[in-house]
Amino acid sequence: MGLFTKDIKSMNDLFVHQLQDIYYAEQQLAKALPKMAAKATDEKLKQDFLFHLDETKAHVKRLEQVFQMQGLEVKAVDCPAIDGIIAEANETAGEVADKAVLDAALINAAQAAEHYEIVRYGSLISWARQLGRSDVATFLQKTLDEEKLEDRRLTTLAEGRINLRAAG
Amino acid sequence: MGLFTKDIKSMNDLFVHQLQDIYYAEQQLAKALPKMAAKATDEKLKQDFLFHLDETKAHVKRLEQVFQMQGLEVKAVDCPAIDGIIAEANETAGEVADKAVLDAALINAAQAAEHYEIVRYGSLISWARQLGRSDVATFLQKTLDEEKLEDRRLTTLAEGRINLRAAG
Repeated sequence: MGLFTKDIKSMNDLFVHQLQDIYYAEQQLAKALPKMAAKATDEKLKQDFLFHLDETKAHVKRLEQVFQMQGLEVKAVDCPAIDGIIAEANETAGEVADKAVLDAALINAAQAAEHYEIVRYGSLISWARQLGRSDVATFLQKTLDEEKLEDRRLTTLAEGRINLRAAG
Repeated sequence: MGLFTKDIKSMNDLFVHQLQDIYYAEQQLAKALPKMAAKATDEKLKQDFLFHLDETKAHVKRLEQVFQMQGLEVKAVDCPAIDGIIAEANETAGEVADKAVLDAALINAAQAAEHYEIVRYGSLISWARQLGRSDVATFLQKTLDEEKLEDRRLTTLAEGRINLRAAG
């Protein structure tokens, strides 16, 4: 969809636009997570990033299935929000000299991405229900649950030991 | 702090960097919210955006107090994440032809901003505690509580009527 072309005329159009947006975002995260895992020094954090990379790849496939369930072409649109979140993560990580502090910064960056996805999936699910597609809503709920779990795992890692080491 | 200058050597440096980041983000939101209120057609949504604009202005002042509590110069650093979130909100809003659908899109955009702030304040509070500044943590907790409440109000508005009208 083009800028200022007023292509979104219905809630279904908005749903499709945001589906293309999150499809792009998940792909960008699948590229960013291996780099974040490589930068992490805490072994549990590194493992968590790699675990969530596998989940993220599964989310990409799940979105492709949603496009198909709706009879739509699989397509991504640029998502300046996730680009900004990833750019900021790289920028901040590039400024951190201490490895334990870098782990704390990486968790914070990953949680910004998780929360972006939580908002987008939350709206997609709500809109799918409103559009009478509870099958699509149920399908996307699996992804939303995994994003929320990842966010909680990151909080547990941060508050359990990483922030303690970073402040030490 | 400059790019790749490795200026962040401690958790306190990371705290200060993210304080400057959220200070910039709150200022950008204080500029974006009146425009979002002007675009909203649902009267309750318009009122909510204006109410949260007042809260956002108070959050800016509260951050200035935190800088002072820490004996720091009040300073903002660019925050590509919030810039991306706001750019995406404007872009999507510019593409929506239907007014009821625009309200649904505006809520979604506002929730992306709220969740960004929720992540940042959550980490700042956690780091402040780790740094032995529970006074700063308690102070920032007020803002975090207000951001979470705003997020819940937006969900209630969306699921109560706006999505229904947008799908109608």
